[in-house]
Amino acid sequence: MKQKLPLAEVYTLLGSGPVVLISSSLKGKYNIMPIAWTTMIDFEPPIVGCCIGDQSYTFQIVKKTKEFVINIPTVKLIKQVYGCGQASGKKVDKFKKFKLTPIPASKVKAPLVKECFASLECKVVDTRMIDQYNLFIVKVVAAWVERGVKQPKTLHHISGRRFILGGTEVVAK
Amino acid sequence: MKQKLPLAEVYTLLGSGPVVLISSSLKGKYNIMPIAWTTMIDFEPPIVGCCIGDQSYTFQIVKKTKEFVINIPTVKLIKQVYGCGQASGKKVDKFKKFKLTPIPASKVKAPLVKECFASLECKVVDTRMIDQYNLFIVKVVAAWVERGVKQPKTLHHISGRRFILGGTEVVAK
Repeated sequence: MKQKLPLAEVYTLLGSGPVVLISSSLKGKYNIMPIAWTTMIDFEPPIVGCCIGDQSYTFQIVKKTKEFVINIPTVKLIKQVYGCGQASGKKVDKFKKFKLTPIPASKVKAPLVKECFASLECKVVDTRMIDQYNLFIVKVVAAWVERGVKQPKTLHHISGRRFILGGTEVVAK
Repeated sequence: MKQKLPLAEVYTLLGSGPVVLISSSLKGKYNIMPIAWTTMIDFEPPIVGCCIGDQSYTFQIVKKTKEFVINIPTVKLIKQVYGCGQASGKKVDKFKKFKLTPIPASKVKAPLVKECFASLECKVVDTRMIDQYNLFIVKVVAAWVERGVKQPKTLHHISGRRFILGGTEVVAK
């Protein structure tokens, strides 16, 4: 069960570079795809840059709707993460196919993904980089996290099926 | 000892979200600082987005010179990584203070950092996002990596002194 996260703490979730699942909604239908290429841009309000491949159905949806949800999965969803990147939402209902559960968001029409330990509701605030770089600059307008999850085993993409496993925390002296 | 890396493979180094050390050069003097907020933007030529805080001396240098090197450290440099973020290059020679070794790059004046297992020579190709977001869009023009380093224990920033330790690789089935 996710609880609300102060927006000023969003950077602690995304700064380490986890693979995320982008969920979106068009005309009442949901779609979902993984992306690895994101960066925090500002702390509060949290601004995030997300590269979404322009060959994807998600790209078409979010270019139109100007909103999506960034969901952060852990290694227990590795099959779904990889699989969602191989199928197209134009042909398949990926929520159904990969047994993921959409739940309503508070400020956008795109759904939160229940199985992910964190979800960030986002609205596009700058479209200047979309056509040249597929780069959407978004503002996080609401954030949700499962408070009980310590050192979540996030996935950090190397290439193809290969990921680095996050989780182990180290502290600089 | 680093060897040349094909530019098409740069994304395998940066996509997982490691903390990097940005080295720069102004009038023959070197500077270095860590940043956590980067993203791959394109594969080849490799395009990368780097957020560099506008309060930093590095920001001033790279806004002028339009070039820098992205160096990737591992956990053995965690003290230097954290320390370089606490000191300003305006007052201190951080290469000297943190016992880091600058070595000449091939296509930019900024130096490679010998102690990092990978170094990417970068030139700024798009300045439109600098003033509003501190976001430099760069092209990697030469890449170097220590081929012997398997599963490098990269650092992935959470907040303050806290990092996630990379390294352990998992493969989606």
